[in-house]
Amino acid sequence: MDPMTKLLLRAARGEAVPHVPVWFMRQAGRSLPEYHEVRAGIGMLDACRRPDLVCEITLQPVRRHKVDAAVLYSDIVVPLKAAGIDLDIVAGTGPVVAEPVRTMADVEAIGGLEPEAVGFVAESVRLLVAELGDTALIGFAGAPFTLASYLVEGGPSRHHAKTKALMYGAPDVWHALCSRLAQITRTFLQVQIEAGADAIQLFDSWAGALSEADYRRYVLPHSQAVLAGLGVPRIHFGVGTGELLPAMAEAGADVVGVDWRTPLDVAASRVPGKALQGNLDPCTLLAPWEVVATEARRVLAEGAKAPGHIFNLGHGVLPETDPDALTRLVDLVHTEG
Amino acid sequence: MDPMTKLLLRAARGEAVPHVPVWFMRQAGRSLPEYHEVRAGIGMLDACRRPDLVCEITLQPVRRHKVDAAVLYSDIVVPLKAAGIDLDIVAGTGPVVAEPVRTMADVEAIGGLEPEAVGFVAESVRLLVAELGDTALIGFAGAPFTLASYLVEGGPSRHHAKTKALMYGAPDVWHALCSRLAQITRTFLQVQIEAGADAIQLFDSWAGALSEADYRRYVLPHSQAVLAGLGVPRIHFGVGTGELLPAMAEAGADVVGVDWRTPLDVAASRVPGKALQGNLDPCTLLAPWEVVATEARRVLAEGAKAPGHIFNLGHGVLPETDPDALTRLVDLVHTEG
Repeated sequence: MDPMTKLLLRAARGEAVPHVPVWFMRQAGRSLPEYHEVRAGIGMLDACRRPDLVCEITLQPVRRHKVDAAVLYSDIVVPLKAAGIDLDIVAGTGPVVAEPVRTMADVEAIGGLEPEAVGFVAESVRLLVAELGDTALIGFAGAPFTLASYLVEGGPSRHHAKTKALMYGAPDVWHALCSRLAQITRTFLQVQIEAGADAIQLFDSWAGALSEADYRRYVLPHSQAVLAGLGVPRIHFGVGTGELLPAMAEAGADVVGVDWRTPLDVAASRVPGKALQGNLDPCTLLAPWEVVATEARRVLAEGAKAPGHIFNLGHGVLPETDPDALTRLVDLVHTEG
Repeated sequence: MDPMTKLLLRAARGEAVPHVPVWFMRQAGRSLPEYHEVRAGIGMLDACRRPDLVCEITLQPVRRHKVDAAVLYSDIVVPLKAAGIDLDIVAGTGPVVAEPVRTMADVEAIGGLEPEAVGFVAESVRLLVAELGDTALIGFAGAPFTLASYLVEGGPSRHHAKTKALMYGAPDVWHALCSRLAQITRTFLQVQIEAGADAIQLFDSWAGALSEADYRRYVLPHSQAVLAGLGVPRIHFGVGTGELLPAMAEAGADVVGVDWRTPLDVAASRVPGKALQGNLDPCTLLAPWEVVATEARRVLAEGAKAPGHIFNLGHGVLPETDPDALTRLVDLVHTEG
C-alpha cells in the first residue's frame, strides 16, 4: 500500500483529498464497551505492554466508527516506565511517580531509553500495520514539558507550580531534565516509525499552562530536538495553546493541533501554511445530534481555510460519550467534509 | 476622602497616576500565617459571615504588603448560600452542592437574593471603609457562568461537561438558570457598592473553558445584566481567556483582567481603550527574587501600553507563596511602576 494514498497523510501534506479525514484523540478506549470488556482485570500499563491487546484496542474504533486513522493504544508514561522510572497509572488519579524529580542528581539517575526496552511497542505496531490496510496508523508520545511536569510534580497538577519553580529557579536542572526526556521521547517515536507508523502525534498536553515567552525559552528547543527530521508527518497538540500556535508550529509540526477555544480559521491565520487538526469541543458530543451536526459543519467550513484539515475533537473523547454519536459524526464528515 | 484620589480608581479610569497601583487576587488568606491563626477552627463560610473576621482578614494584606487595594474576604458561593442553596466549601475540594441543578424545576426552586440575606456583607464593608483611608476597597462576586458550573456539576469540574451539555441540550433551562444567577450576583454587588465598596471585580473564573461563540451566545448577556450601570469601576477577570478578551470587555468591563498567558501589550491591542489588570504568573513568586523582579519589570513595561494598568498576578496567590516575596514585589511596583 502506497502510504500516500492514505487520506490522513495527504491532508497532513496539504494535498487534495476526496473528503476530510477524521479520527478522534482517545478514540481507543474509555467510551467503548468492547474496550472495557478486554481491559477487565488488566492494569493500564500492563495492557500497553501486550501487543495482542494493544492491537485489538487500537483496532476497535476503526472497526466501529470507520475513522481514517488508528492511534496506537499507549500512554505518555510508557517510555518513562521503560526507561526505568518507578511510576504507575492510578485509576481516577492518573500517573503517579514514586520519587519526584527535583535535583540534578534526580535527573542524572534517569536512564536513557534503549529501543529494545519498548520492543513490545514495535511488535504492536507491526501487528497493526498488517491489519490496517489503507487506514493510517498514528504513533504518539508525550512532549518533554508535559512529561517533566508529571515527574517534577509527582503526578497530575493543576498549576504546575513545582515544575515552573524548577524551570525559573534552576534552569540548568530543568534543561538537563528536558534533554533526557527529549532523547527518551525521540527514541520512542523512532521505534514506532521504524515499525511502520505512518505519522506521529506529539502531545504537549500541558504546554498551554505556559506563556509564549516561557514556552520559547524553556520548552521549544526540547520539542524541536524530538521532532526534527523524523521522516513522517508530525502532528503537535496541546490544550489551551491559542497564544502558542506559532511557537508550536516552529517546534517542528507539519500539522498543528487546535483545541476548541481557537476556531480553525483563526488558527489558520496564526500558522499560515500549516495543516490543522481539531477543534470540535468534546463536550458537544454530549448534546443532541442537531447540535453536533451544526458544530461539525462549522468546523469543516472553518478548517477549509487551512491548506490541509484533519477533523478531530479539540481534546480527547470524554469517557461518558455515546459511541454512536462518534460513528454518526464520522459519517457526517465523510459525506459532507 | 475623595474616592478619585484613590490610585486604583484613577488607573481604572485611565487617568494619570504617580505610580501603578498594585493588589493581588487572593491576597487575603491562604499564604498569610496571621490568616491561618484567625481562621483556626472556623469554617470558610462561617468566617465569611462574621464582619469582625472579614474585616480583620481583609485588612491583613493591606497592613503587611501596603497594597493599594483591599479585596473583600468572601467566596463566590456566599450569595448562593444566602439565597438558600444547600452547599458547603469542603477543604481540599472546593464548593460542594447538595443537589445539583439540572432541570427547569431545579432552577425554579432557586430563590432570589434579598439584600437583607447578605446584611453581614454590608456590615463588613462598612467596617472596612472606616478603616481603609485612601486604600480602595474592591468588592467581588462570581459571574453567572462560573456559578452555574458549580451548581450543575455539583462541585469543581475539569471539563465542565455536564454544564456544557445542559447549555447545548437545554438552552431554555440554561438561560433561566443564568438569569437567576445574574439577579443574585447583581444584588450581591449592589449591597457591597451601597455599603461603600469603591470598585468591584466580577470573577468568571471558568469562562476560559468556552469558545468565543459559546461565550457570546450563552454567557455574555447574563454577565452584561450583572455589570450594566453599577456606578463604580468594574474589573472583569477569567483564566485562559485570551480569545475572549474583547467579548469580556463588551460584557461591561472598565478594566479587563488578563491571566499570564496573554502579555499585556497583546491584550491592549485586543481591547483598545480598556484599562488592564494582570498578568504576572503566580508561579513566578516561587522563583528566586531576580526572576520575580525581571518578570515584574516586563509586566510594567507591557502594561504601559494600556490606557490604565493595575498591577496584579495572572491568577490568585498560591498558598505556598512566601508572603515576603509579595511585600517586596509591592515595593518594586511602587518604586519603579
